[in-house]
Amino acid sequence: MQMLDIVHRRRREGKDTIMLCAGQPTTGAPGAVLEAAEASLHASTLGYTEVVGDRDLRETVASWHSSTYGVETSADNVVITTGSSGGFVASFLAVLDHGDTVALSCPGYPAYRNILESLGARVVDLVCDESTRFQPTAAMLDALPVEDKPKAVIVTSPGNPSGTIIDPAELERIARWCEDNGAVLISDEDYHGMSFGRPLATARQFSDRAIVVGTLSKYYSMTGWRIGWLILPDELLTPVENLQASLALCAPAISQVAGRAAFSAAARAELDGHITHYAAARRALLEELPKIGFTRFAEPDGGLYFWLDVSDVTDDSEAWCHELVDAIGVAFAPGIDFDPVHGHQWVRLSLCAPEDQTREACRRLGAYLGR
Amino acid sequence: MQMLDIVHRRRREGKDTIMLCAGQPTTGAPGAVLEAAEASLHASTLGYTEVVGDRDLRETVASWHSSTYGVETSADNVVITTGSSGGFVASFLAVLDHGDTVALSCPGYPAYRNILESLGARVVDLVCDESTRFQPTAAMLDALPVEDKPKAVIVTSPGNPSGTIIDPAELERIARWCEDNGAVLISDEDYHGMSFGRPLATARQFSDRAIVVGTLSKYYSMTGWRIGWLILPDELLTPVENLQASLALCAPAISQVAGRAAFSAAARAELDGHITHYAAARRALLEELPKIGFTRFAEPDGGLYFWLDVSDVTDDSEAWCHELVDAIGVAFAPGIDFDPVHGHQWVRLSLCAPEDQTREACRRLGAYLGR
Repeated sequence: MQMLDIVHRRRREGKDTIMLCAGQPTTGAPGAVLEAAEASLHASTLGYTEVVGDRDLRETVASWHSSTYGVETSADNVVITTGSSGGFVASFLAVLDHGDTVALSCPGYPAYRNILESLGARVVDLVCDESTRFQPTAAMLDALPVEDKPKAVIVTSPGNPSGTIIDPAELERIARWCEDNGAVLISDEDYHGMSFGRPLATARQFSDRAIVVGTLSKYYSMTGWRIGWLILPDELLTPVENLQASLALCAPAISQVAGRAAFSAAARAELDGHITHYAAARRALLEELPKIGFTRFAEPDGGLYFWLDVSDVTDDSEAWCHELVDAIGVAFAPGIDFDPVHGHQWVRLSLCAPEDQTREACRRLGAYLGR
Repeated sequence: MQMLDIVHRRRREGKDTIMLCAGQPTTGAPGAVLEAAEASLHASTLGYTEVVGDRDLRETVASWHSSTYGVETSADNVVITTGSSGGFVASFLAVLDHGDTVALSCPGYPAYRNILESLGARVVDLVCDESTRFQPTAAMLDALPVEDKPKAVIVTSPGNPSGTIIDPAELERIARWCEDNGAVLISDEDYHGMSFGRPLATARQFSDRAIVVGTLSKYYSMTGWRIGWLILPDELLTPVENLQASLALCAPAISQVAGRAAFSAAARAELDGHITHYAAARRALLEELPKIGFTRFAEPDGGLYFWLDVSDVTDDSEAWCHELVDAIGVAFAPGIDFDPVHGHQWVRLSLCAPEDQTREACRRLGAYLGR
């Protein structure tokens, strides 16, 4: 069973559980979104929207993207998807044929690998560690043997599970490498808006052939609303629209209508406040974990996660995470889900819990380990 | 461009358009659902639900299915999906390997074919006409050459685009054929609840190895809410849960929470009223179309559609539908989308428009054709 489902089940059973396993803000949607949602219940029949998404939301995403990054992104290139999950499935089907190779960072978001393998694509791991701040580089792509030359490259910045941000100059090198080598760059920008200081670039600053993936789930604190988007190069617009007409019909209507309000000034003020809260959880982990003997980790630049080496206590991160949630009511995500190579000795913690719960989780862990 | 998007665009431009192209009720969600949705905005953060769906909604679907059909359906076998679209993608990926064959009726819902082809499956058409009321039979499956022996069989009753209902005894024969021949029966029951008199059986009455697909979009009048479900045989529960964890994460939370109310007595009373309205549109088409020379069609037993032979006016249903919407503001769905064999001479009309608009569409069509 997924760790998140274990937490849901424990909570239904009334068992105290500190959830550090999910990339899910504990906050709900911004107030402006709730107001817009309530109004939409009475203003519309909330039927199918256009396949590519509600035009007003597409305009809003395009305008936000253009002004945030100083690029010219047209609403015509934006397709609204059912979460970024829907965007990945549609992108992969539009770009890949059966047996095609995709390069992705390891550790990385497990759904890429799982979806790709279920679609018959072949995954090549770009194994990352401290030496590149847990992010892939153009040099790694250059070093791939010819039989592993990818049809697509996926990058995620801020990373999941690493939380590290790719340097804009390196992202530019990767984008150039992809253009030069006939690969489609898929830039997962789901955690944009969430930086603790480092600059965040969009792949579209460096290549209009890249696919950008975005979501309302993370910075916008709207996981259950299931709204994401793709910003697509012109040549993929028709293929993706045709796929979406069969795969999805449309993203949820109420979420599209209300989601526009997430980009308002009032919503942003509220959402920026959450970043302070993730920064506090990050600081708590940076302070508490070394005290109980955990000293190797990716120091997050942004996003929602903390990637932690637990090799001195386990060689089976999955079993250990199940043991922990049973024993001390603290739920981590097993590293093996993110990294088939080294993940049996790592776990992913989330920055979403309140600071006091985060410190309490560390206290329980220290006590459990007798440290 | 999809006909539905043409209608959206025309309406944005203020152009009068009678929409007979979409399987979309003109009504919204039942009042009880709107109330529940409004309450949920203030009662929950609407984060991710369990991957397989909100437990209460799964219980509600199972209990409705059990009592409606006199079967024992457990909530453990119900997985909530993002519309039935999400259910098809997950089912196909769980059941099929690259290159596997799937048998489906022709005419049929185009998304099956499109999704299957995008996943690398091979489609075998069961070509249907008046002789079997536009529905496949076990005899057709028996007659398939050995190289076309399917790994899965999809049936849709009431049909899309035909509106015809498979006789329960024939559905039983198909279910038996699938069990005997190692094929998975996928029974699309999206239009259940919508019969003009004929009895409707679920595949689960005849086989617990069948996959049943359902939705809140049609009878429940909640297209844009994107809620569907799968009722799965035990052996597919874990594969589908694992797929959903990567493909979807979860169906939209507000739609799941509010969707439960669609099964309430108050909602059902409201929804049953809509059937009267579809029956009136059906009667209007049965009366008006022969008057203007259209005499060959599938007489709908239920569902939302009317499948019409237009061979005396066109050999290119797609061009003709585009011509019609421009000339008289009436949008039909081109038959070629539903039937690659004969669909160039057919169109699909919807029963969703009000009776007066349906009659007005026929009047405009007659005038346009000089009949």
